[in-house]
Amino acid sequence: MSLESSIHAKAVELSKNAIRMTTTAGSGHPSSAMSLAHIVVELMYRHMRYDPADPWHPNCDRLVLSEGHAVPIIYAAYADLGGAVGNRHNKPKLLKAEDLSALRELDSELDGHPNPAEGFPFFDAATGSLGQGLSVGAGLALGARLDGINKRIFVLIGDGESREGQIWEAADFIVDHQLTSVCVIVNCNGHGQAAPVSGRQSSEVIAGKLGAFGWEVKAIDGHDPAQVVAALENLNTEEKPVAIVARTIKGWGVPSIIGKNYHGKPIPAEDVDSALAELDATATDVGAELTERFTPPAPPAAKAKLKPKEIRIAPFVEGLERVGLSSTIKSKKLATRVAYGAGLVALGDADDRIVALDADVSNSTYSMFFKEKHPDRYFECRIAEQNMISVAAGLSAAGKIPFVSSFGKFIARATDQIDLASITRANLKIVASHTGVSLGADGPSQMAVADLAYFRSMTRVDDGHGGIACRVFHPSDAVCSYRCCELMANVRGMCYLRTHRPATPIIYSFEERFELCGCKQLREGRHLTLASSGYMLNTVLKAAEELAKAGITCHVFDCYTFPLEATPILSAARDSGGVILTVEDNYAGGLHAELAEAAARQGNVRVDGLTVSRIPKSAKTAEEVFTHVGLGLGHIMKRARDLVGA
Amino acid sequence: MSLESSIHAKAVELSKNAIRMTTTAGSGHPSSAMSLAHIVVELMYRHMRYDPADPWHPNCDRLVLSEGHAVPIIYAAYADLGGAVGNRHNKPKLLKAEDLSALRELDSELDGHPNPAEGFPFFDAATGSLGQGLSVGAGLALGARLDGINKRIFVLIGDGESREGQIWEAADFIVDHQLTSVCVIVNCNGHGQAAPVSGRQSSEVIAGKLGAFGWEVKAIDGHDPAQVVAALENLNTEEKPVAIVARTIKGWGVPSIIGKNYHGKPIPAEDVDSALAELDATATDVGAELTERFTPPAPPAAKAKLKPKEIRIAPFVEGLERVGLSSTIKSKKLATRVAYGAGLVALGDADDRIVALDADVSNSTYSMFFKEKHPDRYFECRIAEQNMISVAAGLSAAGKIPFVSSFGKFIARATDQIDLASITRANLKIVASHTGVSLGADGPSQMAVADLAYFRSMTRVDDGHGGIACRVFHPSDAVCSYRCCELMANVRGMCYLRTHRPATPIIYSFEERFELCGCKQLREGRHLTLASSGYMLNTVLKAAEELAKAGITCHVFDCYTFPLEATPILSAARDSGGVILTVEDNYAGGLHAELAEAAARQGNVRVDGLTVSRIPKSAKTAEEVFTHVGLGLGHIMKRARDLVGA
Repeated sequence: MSLESSIHAKAVELSKNAIRMTTTAGSGHPSSAMSLAHIVVELMYRHMRYDPADPWHPNCDRLVLSEGHAVPIIYAAYADLGGAVGNRHNKPKLLKAEDLSALRELDSELDGHPNPAEGFPFFDAATGSLGQGLSVGAGLALGARLDGINKRIFVLIGDGESREGQIWEAADFIVDHQLTSVCVIVNCNGHGQAAPVSGRQSSEVIAGKLGAFGWEVKAIDGHDPAQVVAALENLNTEEKPVAIVARTIKGWGVPSIIGKNYHGKPIPAEDVDSALAELDATATDVGAELTERFTPPAPPAAKAKLKPKEIRIAPFVEGLERVGLSSTIKSKKLATRVAYGAGLVALGDADDRIVALDADVSNSTYSMFFKEKHPDRYFECRIAEQNMISVAAGLSAAGKIPFVSSFGKFIARATDQIDLASITRANLKIVASHTGVSLGADGPSQMAVADLAYFRSMTRVDDGHGGIACRVFHPSDAVCSYRCCELMANVRGMCYLRTHRPATPIIYSFEERFELCGCKQLREGRHLTLASSGYMLNTVLKAAEELAKAGITCHVFDCYTFPLEATPILSAARDSGGVILTVEDNYAGGLHAELAEAAARQGNVRVDGLTVSRIPKSAKTAEEVFTHVGLGLGHIMKRARDLVGA
Repeated sequence: MSLESSIHAKAVELSKNAIRMTTTAGSGHPSSAMSLAHIVVELMYRHMRYDPADPWHPNCDRLVLSEGHAVPIIYAAYADLGGAVGNRHNKPKLLKAEDLSALRELDSELDGHPNPAEGFPFFDAATGSLGQGLSVGAGLALGARLDGINKRIFVLIGDGESREGQIWEAADFIVDHQLTSVCVIVNCNGHGQAAPVSGRQSSEVIAGKLGAFGWEVKAIDGHDPAQVVAALENLNTEEKPVAIVARTIKGWGVPSIIGKNYHGKPIPAEDVDSALAELDATATDVGAELTERFTPPAPPAAKAKLKPKEIRIAPFVEGLERVGLSSTIKSKKLATRVAYGAGLVALGDADDRIVALDADVSNSTYSMFFKEKHPDRYFECRIAEQNMISVAAGLSAAGKIPFVSSFGKFIARATDQIDLASITRANLKIVASHTGVSLGADGPSQMAVADLAYFRSMTRVDDGHGGIACRVFHPSDAVCSYRCCELMANVRGMCYLRTHRPATPIIYSFEERFELCGCKQLREGRHLTLASSGYMLNTVLKAAEELAKAGITCHVFDCYTFPLEATPILSAARDSGGVILTVEDNYAGGLHAELAEAAARQGNVRVDGLTVSRIPKSAKTAEEVFTHVGLGLGHIMKRARDLVGA
């Protein structure tokens, strides 16, 4: 009984601090936090093998709080345990109880929702947009397995949150990959934000669903210490991952707020004392008494890790040979997506940290080359893109460099997950194939056209860790695509590679080098500057050739990356007509915006742009679609002539 | 037996045409199409109550092909039945068998994937990005229920597709709302694109999952006509929706391609004859013989519909009074999100077509006002944003005007669904609250900052139906927010309204009018032009006041909508310093890009911009966050001074 009494006592203590800190902060979710009190005590004080003072320890068990708004209860426990905060492993600051009052302050590590990047290394990923944590946990488990580490991953999700489809994508993924080191605990407190949860999210129905998805389910009372302890004691099922479905009470211990849909607001300052008194009364009722001394078990000793080196991939020709593409070298034609496949293999050959994920289209994105060469580091995610991105975020937290591929159109499925990975500062490499409209016949449901605007928006954003939120790569030929893989692997942070379906001419020498923020001048002229990237660059080169025949000579720039150092382009344009025409196979917000912003800051170069001007449809050939959306060779020629007044 | 033989015979005939048309097109998915042959025959020739020559008939049963790539089998059936194509109800063109050879051509209505907007009115929504059809079906069923129409909605999904979490969001939603008119048929052919489906998507496991989600499940052989007929015969369950889990064969009837993961490619021209011969042999084996004459049962007669009128909402003050906000009129302060709530109620009062959907945050977005006033037209979607958007697309197809609200951050969850709704040209009104960083303390996981770049990208895109792909509204005060509701309801097509959490001053007269593509000049000056919108406009107005004290006078423009007619702003800037400074609480790609693109086309006005320059974090006040991300009053003042050289 002394264990149970002690868990109750600690749960009451943490709940009090959750109340105090949210009231001091003036916002937050105390009632959700309190529903997790006993589970968090058992996990963080007794069950998880970790060292609060060294959460960076590679062998630590990990906790993912998917329902991020409940975070005050974690902060309370972590402060009590003297957990380390800050971003510097060699100079940790140990949290104290008094730090809790800084919750949500600008200079505090205790962000409103879990946010490791702001200095809370106990967590591996930003959460708070719901439904993503189980996938992150799966990624952590995959990473640990690759490293031969026997660690457990605990994921706390809410009942209302389990309505998010991604939870069920993750549930399938974990069973498929037999990630039995993941244990999910469903916090069934019965209340969402606006209303009680649906009957579809009752603890019984959730348990039934998890069972149907292939999980071993344990149903418990989440405020009964004995049941919580027992549920966590026997997790070593060999075959099935374990789900603990815990019936809990939102606002546990404070009857005056229970059952009233009390969500997302602190207890008013004037009511705090009475709420704490209610908790004291609850403590008496349940026989709370802190007699045990809780110390989390230490993690197993870790092996020393080598410092990662810069990744150098094989020369282009060798890279193609390794995946059986030697014939391409003669034909001098290759799709950028295929070159990506070769680059990915070369990366995997060069560094063990490289892992790849795909969503049932590896034979279209060409991640299949990696799947064949490095099957142990390839993770098939099936048709479930949201889970794939969040799994990759977990793999990144485990020290891997995940390359995630699908059709660009389907990558959009995971926009919110990408946003969260960005907040996490995940080292995520997103590879989108079949972008733009050049895929032609399959039609608009397979075409990514708003993607560049979205990803470019992040390229002007400081990540606060010496990098930028995202870099975009948009190669126009196979050499550039291959080399972009290397650039992406070596720059810390999120990257987006945009590849195309059709085979296109190789325009660069096999030895060409590319750089971050760079561009390449491919032609020189005196009348107009043309700027493009990706597939469209080929049409632009044709246009420049035709225009030259008519006496209009053009600079042509390949703008293969964002952010782009625009000075060379603006300078070239200024000296030769003062006009730039951008051409891009996406909706507005890409290259035209990039160069117009740069030019308009200075005001002495004009910029016009052609983008996908109407919602596309199917056509048998890419050229027909380009013409349909205003990007045919004729459109480019006409606009160029208009701009130079010819 | 003659019925079964006839169904077999028709299935063979349609399969042949699926082969022929994809081979002629040079791309497509014949094997997936053939796995649906018998089910499609039973549905389209015998079971569904509809008139192929009048698919616009409001009482028709509907079919949603969620696995859009299987569409050739539908085209084959529809052509055989003389189905109507084109966008003109009063001038339909009746499809003929020979039209099938135009599959995927630019001027054909037979797009690569289902695409009603290109002239295939049998469908209600574009599909092809997987997992969305069941939600669309739910929206169609809700619409029919509101109109008192007893129609059935059949949704065909793939087994691999059922890995998408959205399927399970829809499964919950349909049970929650007792939409028993929806019948889902799962096509378990066992093969995805790159590989056989996971064991998690076997027909047995899918059946178990559907059962756990509360569905009545019937497992059948999808190529046994008797079983298909029987399964569809008894759908009238009162309590549970029915799911038919059909075991099928990818490439049915052509043994040479069965079991070989033959996906997404037509049969080579030289092999077509032998494939057709294989189908003939199969026909003999199963005793196929067309003796029955199939005619789909007619739909019940429809009532005449009134032509919809322009929607006029109550005056602003009355609109506020209706939702109990009279006191605001005195305080002259109100959050744009709250004004949206009032505007939505006013719309609902004025027109029955207005419906609202929310994802458990109605008390934050203020759709709760509508929920209280018009509960029959409010649909709670719980924490499942993807399903919500696709349900709304279905409601739009049913003639409703759906307003869909959540935090802007969580709307990002449904980007792919929004993309598809855009291809559908759904009349969807998306309302994003808590956008930008002004919500402060909850931190970045709740902040929408990349949203404007994404939605603006669609505002320069012709929808091919006389409109544009999307309009963005970003009101800075309550009057504008209220009036934007009216603008959105009256303009056909997708709209995005961006509201903020904090209460802000009412800056417009209660009678002010706003217009599409419009902007408002709020101050006049001689040195600099400031442009902003939404929450930031308030800071910009303060900055202008402070600058005026220092002798720097500014034009100030409220750019409350995209696309924006920029001429007035550029003209004003040209006459007073020639410099514009934009200020916006989002990542790059919003107002700065909009005005820089316009200015750089002409080249005589400079444009500089302040955006959210780093990944945000929590802080107790909005002002602290603004300062953290480079958008404090001081940042604006400094940049303005720099630009005018003061």
